Amino acid sequence: MDSAPAALSLAGRLAAEIGDRHVLTDPGAMAGYLVEERGLFTGTALAVIRPGSTRETAACLRLCREAGVAAVPQGGNTGVCGGGVPDRAVVFAMGRMDRILELDPLNATLTAEAGCTLGAARAAAAEAGFLLPLSLPSEGSCQIGGNLSTNAGGANVLRYGMTRDLVLGLEAALPDGRVLRELRKLRKDNTGYDVKQLFIGAEGTLGIITAAVLKLAPLPRRSLTCLVACDGAAAAMALYARMAARHGDTLSMFEFLPRLGIELVLAHCHGVPDPMEAPHPAYVLLQLDTPLAARDLAAELEETLAPALEDGLVRDAVIGQSGAQDARLLALRERMAEAQTLRGGNIKHDVSVPLSAVAAFIAEAGAACEALWPGVQVLGFGHLGDGNIHFNVICPDPAPTAATAFLAAAPRFNRTVHDIVARFGGSVSAEHGIGLLKRGELARYADPVTLDLMRALKAAIDPANLMNPGKILT
Amino acid sequence: MDSAPAALSLAGRLAAEIGDRHVLTDPGAMAGYLVEERGLFTGTALAVIRPGSTRETAACLRLCREAGVAAVPQGGNTGVCGGGVPDRAVVFAMGRMDRILELDPLNATLTAEAGCTLGAARAAAAEAGFLLPLSLPSEGSCQIGGNLSTNAGGANVLRYGMTRDLVLGLEAALPDGRVLRELRKLRKDNTGYDVKQLFIGAEGTLGIITAAVLKLAPLPRRSLTCLVACDGAAAAMALYARMAARHGDTLSMFEFLPRLGIELVLAHCHGVPDPMEAPHPAYVLLQLDTPLAARDLAAELEETLAPALEDGLVRDAVIGQSGAQDARLLALRERMAEAQTLRGGNIKHDVSVPLSAVAAFIAEAGAACEALWPGVQVLGFGHLGDGNIHFNVICPDPAPTAATAFLAAAPRFNRTVHDIVARFGGSVSAEHGIGLLKRGELARYADPVTLDLMRALKAAIDPANLMNPGKILT
Repeated sequence: MDSAPAALSLAGRLAAEIGDRHVLTDPGAMAGYLVEERGLFTGTALAVIRPGSTRETAACLRLCREAGVAAVPQGGNTGVCGGGVPDRAVVFAMGRMDRILELDPLNATLTAEAGCTLGAARAAAAEAGFLLPLSLPSEGSCQIGGNLSTNAGGANVLRYGMTRDLVLGLEAALPDGRVLRELRKLRKDNTGYDVKQLFIGAEGTLGIITAAVLKLAPLPRRSLTCLVACDGAAAAMALYARMAARHGDTLSMFEFLPRLGIELVLAHCHGVPDPMEAPHPAYVLLQLDTPLAARDLAAELEETLAPALEDGLVRDAVIGQSGAQDARLLALRERMAEAQTLRGGNIKHDVSVPLSAVAAFIAEAGAACEALWPGVQVLGFGHLGDGNIHFNVICPDPAPTAATAFLAAAPRFNRTVHDIVARFGGSVSAEHGIGLLKRGELARYADPVTLDLMRALKAAIDPANLMNPGKILT
Repeated sequence: MDSAPAALSLAGRLAAEIGDRHVLTDPGAMAGYLVEERGLFTGTALAVIRPGSTRETAACLRLCREAGVAAVPQGGNTGVCGGGVPDRAVVFAMGRMDRILELDPLNATLTAEAGCTLGAARAAAAEAGFLLPLSLPSEGSCQIGGNLSTNAGGANVLRYGMTRDLVLGLEAALPDGRVLRELRKLRKDNTGYDVKQLFIGAEGTLGIITAAVLKLAPLPRRSLTCLVACDGAAAAMALYARMAARHGDTLSMFEFLPRLGIELVLAHCHGVPDPMEAPHPAYVLLQLDTPLAARDLAAELEETLAPALEDGLVRDAVIGQSGAQDARLLALRERMAEAQTLRGGNIKHDVSVPLSAVAAFIAEAGAACEALWPGVQVLGFGHLGDGNIHFNVICPDPAPTAATAFLAAAPRFNRTVHDIVARFGGSVSAEHGIGLLKRGELARYADPVTLDLMRALKAAIDPANLMNPGKILT
């Protein structure tokens, strides 16, 4: 194709802007930036560039626009929907912009560049006596800019909200090379349209986030981890209602773990013991925390658990008595993804429904999947307190050969599960986003007026369609 | 002018759509819809219509668009920036759409039509055992649609966030007569651009919100009201830092009241006693609440107040011992606006700065106003825990004749105060919005790129500029 000379000269101009060594064009050097975590997509890039400042990011976007070449921002490349996979584009790898610009203790805010890892930001907050409430397994590599661009969730959304809820201000380089400077530190600011909201969760399709101001929470001084056994999702939701009504201001995690998930962890992960003497159909892993050191969280929790045990809503409960025991309980949840990978043959869905529909959804979608493919194992687990279910279907036969045919049926399972999600007024992507993976699902399930509005917003901000094109919207 | 025949036929078509009696054209019947609360603006309307459903609202918008006539949505008409004042437009008065559509206890959500008053929605939530955390003095007349359109704040933002933070879903009639149907009840939903965010705080310039889904909080079972005396804003902020670090999950109000404000209330409002034996330079009115009935909030608070008294950070404290005493303490804050109105001669500013700049801002802006007009009284009070200061300047001479000359100097005071706000990275409208009143301030203080983006979004959604035109953007 005839774009090669233009691409070469673009690489030269990019190098003139940010320095030769920050413009990668060697296929080996670029390889890691072209694939997404699960290997579902592999892209192609004209170059991978590593800008060192907001000014450089904006200048390079302008060069891409002048050359008519697409630009794809990439944080830690830990997304699972292909949102950072390029297609004959320039990849903007943001990792050099990793500074923490300010920690304001009285304002309880942290200002960081986009390429700062979540882990580094959390550590800086903790050092100053604060909690940065966003917590993800990938915190060592995922970056603040990617967290904002995907509106990342995680296990503490229940208490602290999604990433969107933590953002007070942001700075972004726009597709035309201008810079939106809204790095504000304000809790209240009603001055016209809140344009920063658009960039949160836009997966880099409207511009490149270069820095953000995040709200911090007080560092908990007491916390409690508890594993509760129960009969299933309906009982877990009934327990959630009681917990929310009484412990809403301390409850920071409420994760649902069916026995099948525990058994996968016990079978495939070393060093994780069965948590209770007898098995139970399902479990809830919950955490309470508070900044008030004098509170007795265990006594507070017992007041809710004791009647629930009497009612039969709760079958058994283990409260962690040490950091080590807490860690063993938390491992049951943390290692569930790894256990499924080791088992093999999974078809995954990241969905949400209203809390009042969770139990019915899990039952109905489970039955539909079993009808579709007799013998499948259905594992609906996760952030029950947010109505966010990781609804995964597992091939009956663990042999890799069997998995191939099973995985080929993924579109049928997706259709089955997502149709039920839609019937319950739910979302086909609760926290992982759309990227490349779910564009078809978005087109199918979103309201046409909503889709039209999205397209109008995209066209208004990126009329040349060069900013991470083909993601979210087809 | 030649638009009269077109206007008449538009009124006829609107009446055919929603019924004669819901289309007001009589000047006397329309009068109440043409002025804003403080009487700063008076508008003109071709008609005031009262649609009864989302379908009717959308159909009437389409008729307005076909006729090339502007449409201005109006809730309880309690805004203070003129956002609902029409200019030869059709006013959409939403009060007939006042139904509560659903209260889902397990999901902890309330779904209401736009014309439902905040008070009715709060009462419905309370009846089901929940708190709708938005609380405003105008709750008896302000409406949910207006609350969303202005992203209303209030005294509990500290704990529960702005209106934006309470919205899970919304429905809106668009300028072209289509309907955006995003009345979702989900806590997590990462499916493309979050288009509903645009309509929150847009002051009706992008469409008419017709219904919303709001998050509810558990109803507090214990609450505590406390008035703390201190030496001024710097001491109050230092106390806030200690309170936030320890009581962040129970602290629902932290209001700053300088002695001047208390004296205005004592002088002008009947039945409000001086709260402490000796006067103090300033006070903080705070509230703690929790859904856990067994907690002893007073004992928890004492643990923070006792050392603060020893340090001299706190000079005295009164904890309400009864509902009646709580009400007397709260009246000091609630009646402060009334006291200022009765005193007369006020120039008001609704501003915010980072919490770390609050004390310096109050000192600097106070000195600048005193330099501008010797003898003025400066009253900076309000939502200190959010950095939101109601910074009001009071004429030295209470005589109405003196006030006239003083009020004519408002633009000079605005420039002085807002320039200092801008220097501290603050906002010239923390919670009241822009409307007509602050369009010039927005144009002056907003970043040009931000303003350009706002204009691009407006043009993308309302290309004919008929949706509440002239508000926010000039």
